[in-house]
Formats: sequence, structure tokens, C-alpha cells
Amino acid sequence: MYRVYGDLQSGNCYKVKLLMQLLGLEHEWVHVDIVAGDTRTPEFTRMNGNEKIPVLQVGESEFLVESNAILNFLAEGSALLPGSGLDRAKVLQWQFFEQYSHEPYIAVARFINKYLGLPESRKEEYLSKQEGGNRALSVMDSHLAGRDYFVGDSPTIADISLYAYTHVAHEGGFDLSGYQNIVRWLRRIESLPGYCGMTP
Amino acid sequence: MYRVYGDLQSGNCYKVKLLMQLLGLEHEWVHVDIVAGDTRTPEFTRMNGNEKIPVLQVGESEFLVESNAILNFLAEGSALLPGSGLDRAKVLQWQFFEQYSHEPYIAVARFINKYLGLPESRKEEYLSKQEGGNRALSVMDSHLAGRDYFVGDSPTIADISLYAYTHVAHEGGFDLSGYQNIVRWLRRIESLPGYCGMTP
Repeated sequence: MYRVYGDLQSGNCYKVKLLMQLLGLEHEWVHVDIVAGDTRTPEFTRMNGNEKIPVLQVGESEFLVESNAILNFLAEGSALLPGSGLDRAKVLQWQFFEQYSHEPYIAVARFINKYLGLPESRKEEYLSKQEGGNRALSVMDSHLAGRDYFVGDSPTIADISLYAYTHVAHEGGFDLSGYQNIVRWLRRIESLPGYCGMTP
Repeated sequence: MYRVYGDLQSGNCYKVKLLMQLLGLEHEWVHVDIVAGDTRTPEFTRMNGNEKIPVLQVGESEFLVESNAILNFLAEGSALLPGSGLDRAKVLQWQFFEQYSHEPYIAVARFINKYLGLPESRKEEYLSKQEGGNRALSVMDSHLAGRDYFVGDSPTIADISLYAYTHVAHEGGFDLSGYQNIVRWLRRIESLPGYCGMTP
């Protein structure tokens, strides 16, 4: 049985939870509080020297980190990850887009607002994230015109990666009402058998 | 034959060039000048709505973007990408580390210094990148203690991804002399058959 170290309010961790639910994978969840410094302890840095969650324990002293790498590992052989070729690479394309052009804006704005309570000292940074976040949403909305999912005709882990922070983008100050292709796609993901929401 | 749109001074583009040389893949290279606005033309945004290089043309009107997704696509079936399992996921782990925890510091500092000439208006941002860049180098140096390559016992595309901006980190103000495991690993990559440097 897998063990996951993470915080379900973090989109990067929730991705892993959502995939495990969709695939019906049994697992133990160990809560990690990043604001309290749990990722900076010697025990944690032995699992991930980069001090980030989520961490997937795959053996006695063997760990895998980086949310999207974990998704690829767990989804191997399932319908949520094409076996090879261009579609498999396109899944990665959207996951790298998510980590470089989406998460650093939308997730960071949400973190400053939701976790930290939008303190005056981070307000400028929060506001600076809005333009990049809207650019990412715009790229996604254009791509989804005439498409049900990001890659091919069925859901993949690219959708799971992008769903995680997009469906709570409003908590980072983003208004999705101008992105109707995204809104319809969110509902599509939420109707998948086994879907679970972020816990409140 | 593949066509690549990119700039060989960009580490993200150079990764693709280096892999193609190591694998002996014939290709045509089309130079794109990002500072001159080449990625914002209608012709370019039809290839990549996210306005970034590199772009790999894989068919008449079929394109793949995101450097590390391109690397996975091209390396499939070669010795540079494990076929499945945990090692394959570990390759992705380091590629996502590269795009989230390494590139946004080291590549951006280098861009501000080398491409833009370190203008006064970007100096504060440049300086703010040093701590995160050194943190990434420190994670890499610790991991390489007692290891020749990032994953397994032979080179993979994880090494190529990390090599690209690390070997020119000094152009972003980073001093590698304190990271001797990294320095030895750089020499190891440079001795691979087919290796090519960044063009001057």
C-alpha cells in the first residue's frame, strides 16, 4: 500500500489524491503542515531534499517526489495515460505548462490569499500574479474550444494536473466566468466515476 | 525530418539540440529571436499559443512544445529514457524539479544578465534569483554525492535537462566552485559521444 505525505488543501497534493480515487488505489495519507515547518525537519528532508510536498513512499526507504512525476508513475498502464507516442508526450506538454505557466501564478496567488490571509507585505506579489494567471487560463480556454479534454478524446492525467488549481482559482482572485470552455471542462472532470473534491 | 523552432542560446532549446546530437537525429533548426518578438506573431502563436520556444514540428500542422516533453518524445525507446517503472518516473521527477525549482532562478537570472545586459530596472529581480538558484544547486550537489548520473547508473534525459542551464549558470552570477559533485558531473556529460556545446 502506498503512503502519501501531503496537505489536501494543496493542489499539488490533491492531484495525487484525486488520481488515486479515480484509479481506486488504496493508500495511507500522512498530513504535512508546510506553514508549521513540517517540510524542513531532518526526517522530511531525508525523503525530499527539496522540502516540498507531495511525497509518495514507494518502498522501505524509497520515495518519489514532484506531483506530476507521481501522477505518471501511478497512472502507468491505465486509461488515464496513453502508452506511448505523441499523445503521451502531449500529456507531459500540458503538465509542464501547468508547473511553469499556471501553478507559479494561480497557486501562489491562492497560497498568499488563502494560507497567509493576504498580508500587506505580500499584496504586491499577489497582484503581480494576476496577469500571468489569466494568460494561462486564456491558453487553456482557447485549447478547449471544440475539445472535451486536453489530450485526445478521453480524460488523462493532464486534465487532473490542470484541474487541481484551476477549480480553486477563485481563491487566488481569478474569475473563471470569462472562460466558459474551462467551466464546462471542470464539470466534465467532476462527473468522472470516483471523483472526489478537495476537502473543505 | 524534424524541424525545431528555437534559439540555441536558450537552455530550453539547447536541451533539444543536445539530445538530437546524442541520438544522431537529423533535423532542421529555425532560429527564433524572442527579444525581437518572433514568438508573438500570428504564425508563431498558431504553433504555440503560450508564445514560448522550443517548438518541435512533428507533422504538417502538428507541433509539440515544452522542452522536457519534447525530450521524452524524442528519447522514447533509446537508452536515455528507461522504458517504465520507478526509474522512468525519477527522470520526470528531476525534469519537473528543473522547470520549477531550477530554471525560474538560474535561467531567469542568466536571461536578465546575458540577454538584457542587467539593466538597473531588473537588478533587484536578478539579485532575488540568487538564493533560489543556489538552493537548487545545493539539492543537485547533494544528490550527486556518490552518483555519476541523476537516475540509475547511466545518462538519461534528466541529466540533459539539468545540464542545459547548469553549465552556463555562471552567466547568471552563480559560482559552481562550491559544488564539486556538479562540476565532475558536468565533465561526465561533456565526454558523452556526440556531445555538442552551446554555440558561442
